[in-house]
This record gives sequence, C-alpha cells and structure tokens, in this order.
Amino acid sequence: MTKFSWKIKYQSKKNNARTGTLNTPHGKIHTPAFIFCATKGALKSSTTITAKENNTQIILSNTYHLMLQPGSELIASHGGLHRFLNWNGPMLTDSGGFQIFSLGHGSVADEIKGSSNIKRSKTLLSISEEGSLFKSYIDGSFKFLSPEKSIEIQRNLGADLILVFDECTPFHVDKSYTESSMRRSHRWATRSLNRFNSDIKFKPNFGSAGEQKLYSIVQGGIYEDLREESIDFNLNQIDTFGIAIGGSLGSSKEEMHKVVNFTAPRLGKNHPIHLLGIGDPRDIWQLVKSGIDTFDCVSPTRLARHGSALIKGKVGKKNIKNNEFSNDLSPIENNCGCSTCKNYSLAYIHHLFKAGELLGLQLITAHNIYFMNELMELIRNSINNDSLDESEEEWFS
Amino acid sequence: MTKFSWKIKYQSKKNNARTGTLNTPHGKIHTPAFIFCATKGALKSSTTITAKENNTQIILSNTYHLMLQPGSELIASHGGLHRFLNWNGPMLTDSGGFQIFSLGHGSVADEIKGSSNIKRSKTLLSISEEGSLFKSYIDGSFKFLSPEKSIEIQRNLGADLILVFDECTPFHVDKSYTESSMRRSHRWATRSLNRFNSDIKFKPNFGSAGEQKLYSIVQGGIYEDLREESIDFNLNQIDTFGIAIGGSLGSSKEEMHKVVNFTAPRLGKNHPIHLLGIGDPRDIWQLVKSGIDTFDCVSPTRLARHGSALIKGKVGKKNIKNNEFSNDLSPIENNCGCSTCKNYSLAYIHHLFKAGELLGLQLITAHNIYFMNELMELIRNSINNDSLDESEEEWFS
Repeated sequence: MTKFSWKIKYQSKKNNARTGTLNTPHGKIHTPAFIFCATKGALKSSTTITAKENNTQIILSNTYHLMLQPGSELIASHGGLHRFLNWNGPMLTDSGGFQIFSLGHGSVADEIKGSSNIKRSKTLLSISEEGSLFKSYIDGSFKFLSPEKSIEIQRNLGADLILVFDECTPFHVDKSYTESSMRRSHRWATRSLNRFNSDIKFKPNFGSAGEQKLYSIVQGGIYEDLREESIDFNLNQIDTFGIAIGGSLGSSKEEMHKVVNFTAPRLGKNHPIHLLGIGDPRDIWQLVKSGIDTFDCVSPTRLARHGSALIKGKVGKKNIKNNEFSNDLSPIENNCGCSTCKNYSLAYIHHLFKAGELLGLQLITAHNIYFMNELMELIRNSINNDSLDESEEEWFS
Repeated sequence: MTKFSWKIKYQSKKNNARTGTLNTPHGKIHTPAFIFCATKGALKSSTTITAKENNTQIILSNTYHLMLQPGSELIASHGGLHRFLNWNGPMLTDSGGFQIFSLGHGSVADEIKGSSNIKRSKTLLSISEEGSLFKSYIDGSFKFLSPEKSIEIQRNLGADLILVFDECTPFHVDKSYTESSMRRSHRWATRSLNRFNSDIKFKPNFGSAGEQKLYSIVQGGIYEDLREESIDFNLNQIDTFGIAIGGSLGSSKEEMHKVVNFTAPRLGKNHPIHLLGIGDPRDIWQLVKSGIDTFDCVSPTRLARHGSALIKGKVGKKNIKNNEFSNDLSPIENNCGCSTCKNYSLAYIHHLFKAGELLGLQLITAHNIYFMNELMELIRNSINNDSLDESEEEWFS
C-alpha cells in the first residue's frame, strides 16, 4: 500500500493549475496527464508497445465491457488486466456505472458533452437502492451490477486505480432526480469503499494483489448547491485516495467549463482530481487551470478511426481523407516527433485511407497518442515555469 | 549497378535445393526467402517497422494497384516507393500483368491455385500485340498497359527488383491459346528489357535511380513442351538478372508441384529463381527442393485478417476465432519468439476478435510474418546442413 502516493509538485500562483506526481505500483504518472482508453482491453488500432513508445503514462479499461466479455474471472486467471493486455504501466478501471447508464438511457455519453438527440436501444432495465439491472449488449442476458459487485470485478481486473460505482445522471432529468440520484450514488460510494476495505477474498492470486487505490466521484449535475453537497461528501464523509468529477456536465462546453471550474478548485490538494470523459485538447488548456490532474477520453483513438489527426490551433484536427492532402508530401504536423510524422507523408496516409488499408488507422492513432502526451508535457512544463498563458496563446496561434 | 549480385552459397547434393545471397542496393536477401505483399503500398495491418522487427528481408508492391492509386508519378515525387512506404530494405514490384488478367478474367488468381468457380466482374477490355486495355477498378476509367509503360511505371516506383510485363494465362484456356499467349509474353519480355535498357528518361530523380534489376517470366501453363520452349527463351534469348516462374500452374497442388519441379531445375544456377504467388508453408518445403529461391504470397497477412495464425504441422493454422481458444492462456505457438507469442495469450487474441478490435489483426499478422521468416531460416539452415528432410519431418510431426 505504501507504493501509492500523491504529491503536488508546483502550484501555480495565477490560477488553480498544478503539477504533481502520482505514484503507483506500476510506475509514476506526471500530472496533468491524459489517460488513454483501452475500453475492451485494447487501445483501438494500437499496441501497448506503440502507446508506450509514444510516451503514454497510463491507460484505462472499462469494467462494463470486460465483465460482459471476456469476463473478469478469465482476466484474473491471467494474473490480471496488466498481463492480459500487456501493459506494465499504471492503469485505471472505471466502475461500469457510466456505461450502464450511458448505454441504458441511450444518450448520456453525448449529453455530457451537450448533444441530446442521439437514439440508441435502451438496455437499462431498472435502478434500485441495491444496484442496477441491465441487459448484456452481447447476448441480451440479464446482468446485475451493484457497488459491491463492481468493486469485486475491479479487484479481479487488478488496475492500480479503480472507481466507486455510481449512476451517471443524464442531462434531461430534473433537479430533484439529479439530487436523489446523487444521494444514492453517495450511498453507493460508501458501499464501494466498504467492500474495497472489507476483505481480501476478491483479490486475485497474483503479484499486485490488493495494491489498488479507490477514487470517489463528485455528482450533482449542473447545480452548484448539489455539487457543493457532493464535494462535502467526497472530502469529509468518505476517505478515498482520489476524487473524480462525474455526472452531467451540462449541455454546452460553457456549462462544462463552469461546472468544472466550480468543482475542481473546491476539492483541494490532498487528492488527485480526475475529470471523467473529457479530452479535447482545446478544453484541456482551460480545465487544467481549474486544478484537474488527469483526463480521459476516447477521442484520440476515435478521431483516428475517422481519419482525423490532432493538430495544434483552433481547428484542432486535420481530416486526412480530404482530397487536399492527396499530393501533400509534408507530415501531419511539421516538427512533430512521432514515428508517423518522422516516417510518413500526408499523401501516403491519405492513400492508405482511400485504399482501405487499416495501416492508416494505426499511423494516425500513433500520432494522436503522441500528440496528447506532448500536449500534456507542454502543459506541465508551462505550469512549472508559470508560462501557461503564453504557451496556450502560442499553441492556438 | 555493381551493387547487385547473385551467388549460390550451398547446393544440396540430394536435390535441387540451394541457399544463396541476393545483394541489392537496399541490402542483402538470404535465400530461400519469402517476399511479403504490400500490394497497395502497405502490408495489411502491419507497419514496415513491425515487419522488420519480425525479420522480414524483402517486400513487394503491385504496379497495377499503385498505377491506379495514388499513381506512380506521386510516388516518384516522394523519391520512390521505398520512401513512400518507409521501407529501406530490398523491394520488388510486379509488372501489373498478373492483376490485369487476374481481375480481368475474374478468376486467374484462384485458378493458379486450382479453383475455378469464383466469379468477379471483368475489367479486361482487350489484349493486343501492343498491350492491354482495361478498366480501372477505382473509377471505371480506361487504362492501357504495355511492356514499355509497365517498365516506365516500375522505374518511377524504384523497387530494386522489377518484372517484365506478361499475360498470366488462365487455366481454362486451351493449349493453343496458352502457346500463342506465351509467345506474345516472350515478345513483351523483350520489349520490357529493351525499355529497361534503352534510356534513363523514366528514372526518377532520387538516390537509387536506375539501380534496378529485371526478372523475366517463364510461361507455358501445364504443358511441358511449352515450359521447355519458355525456359529456352528465358535462358538463351533474353538476358535478365532473375527469372520468375509464372503462368498457370494447373488445377491442383499436385500439378503445381509438377510444373515447378519440371521448370525450376532447368533454370540453372546463374539466376535467382522466383515463384510467383505461391506461399503455403507446407508447399514451400517441397518447392525449395526444386530450386526455388524466393516466394511471394498474400496468405500470411490474408490469413491473419480472417483470424488464422500459422503453425507448424499438417494442419498448418489455428483459427483463433474458434471458441476452443476463449480460455486458453497459452500463446499461439509455444516457444515462438515473435512479439505476439511472447506477450499475448490465445484467450486475449480470441477476445480481440470477438470484441471487433483491429488490434487482433495486428497481433496475428505480426506472428504470421515472423513465422514465415522463421520457416525460411530453418529451411536455409537445413539446406546448409544437408538436413532438409529431417527438418521437414520434424516440422510436420
């Protein structure tokens, strides 16, 4: 247990931005850091070796997907998720709550980021004090997840950092539902922590057994009084290593920034603060100033799948499928140090997409991973040098 | 031009098997060797870096595909194919003939290997003494390829080893068509060589310009008298660096082995001998005994796309999508030294395929590439030690 630690290295004098070091049994994370999503136990179109070569510090996997396929027992029999997917660095798993309610309501994932028109089939069957009943998206079978069950599964998976089970409330519900959902999530957080602390029966029989730390989650939607109540709960009524900011972040980027800027600074310095599911580079420049230490988002790998490479500046990306790149011998970004930009032209990657070659996805994914890690390193250095605003201005110019 | 050489290292006393060294400006190839297909300028689901790490000596690309997309001029403006696709090792391009006639007739590729029921749309419009008119599979536009045009394109692409333009006769034609087609292909070979030798106008302006060597192609289908006539042409009436065995190889594996075993030993020791389009490991053990120095086939990467990993023995492959592997913690092959087998279990790769993760293709592709290169190294060592039969028996047991 002594292998974990959280230490703020430098606190900006101008705003709440800070750099820090988060130690885990699988290595240290320099913060602010970006966490890449290996949702189903795999980074999309990237080996963990490539991710490491492109400076990745930490990845996450999803309890919800892995409990359905291949099952956490199978992964435990491998000696845990680190060995299953060949990643020896720090790792996080979420609790499954987000996906149950996101896929269940059919729209939470989009709502968090402000779009609410997406229709999906609803797999959430019921929510009770005990937990949540839902249908497997794989075979339609009934599955039940409770705080205790989520922690047991996350013990089996064996990630370094794990999350309490919560309901991720959608944006379209009213304040009274958000309030009652928040309070139930607080009770679920306490049950998660109790299970986490209670015994070692669920720890699989391998090296890093039990060497995990728990994050609680701040709820409350867009309501400041509810956020305040949840902040008080997370700081004073439950004792976890880290704190995540979850729940609905509103229907626009402005609301999201407002919620985060209200919440993060109130969480203090004793916990690493994770912001769930947000990862647009253009937002990150702002959000670190509220005191966010870690981010996660599927966007770097998802954008790559759609042919988009991340670049600096206001536009933020290049769609390499665009014909303007068909004859462009320059790399995705000049002076980028990633293996893709050092070795391949836009014309080549454009050709790969036109020819239907999956290698195109691999090459853009590697660039996007490197890009995010470079961005976070620049942000860390700029915080340490008190030049965050200057770096931001240059980055966007 | 002095950078090229071909030297037989050891000639087996028991059969026609031999080891050799083929020097090119981009490095040497130890033979017998396997050539991996980067058909459209990309190995399917593998970077060239991964291919290199898995001991790949040489790759090939296809004139037909690259002339249609992105065009050989674009590739020349990059400084050639080596730079376009980031491969600094030896490289071969074919002449485009095979694909025009394969896709054109709709079935040659399958017929060469003995199946003739596959229907595809026909894009071949006409064959004349001058060359071949066909429709682009990309936009339906008319394209013309002649011996001269093929060589000009291959000069632009800049591979180390290039091929004369030929008609790859299908199996379903009669002997008289095969004969007249062969003779036209001989005339086309002479025209290809003349263009190859005539001037340097078509050599792009980059480092290895003009440093290429030409292979002619033995035709004649399954007819021994025609094969003999073509062997005489290739040995005595045209002067090329290498000789490939092409044309129809019959309707069964037995016929294919018979054609190769008739042809290859008659081609002597002065040329490296390439067998076009054949690459089943179980065949390669036999075919090296006829004196084949290099092989090419899409199978290692194509099998991977369908979830099949190459293994030793009579069955020859494992379909990892099969449920029997869902809980199998062992690697694809015990004692395999590839990065996939050292780091990942069958259960994990099975999970990736079930979850639709493209990483599964990458992992099996890396294994299959390593597997082929290991096989060829074992065969080379066994030829050098006069233990080819013993190695073969052990490999199949």
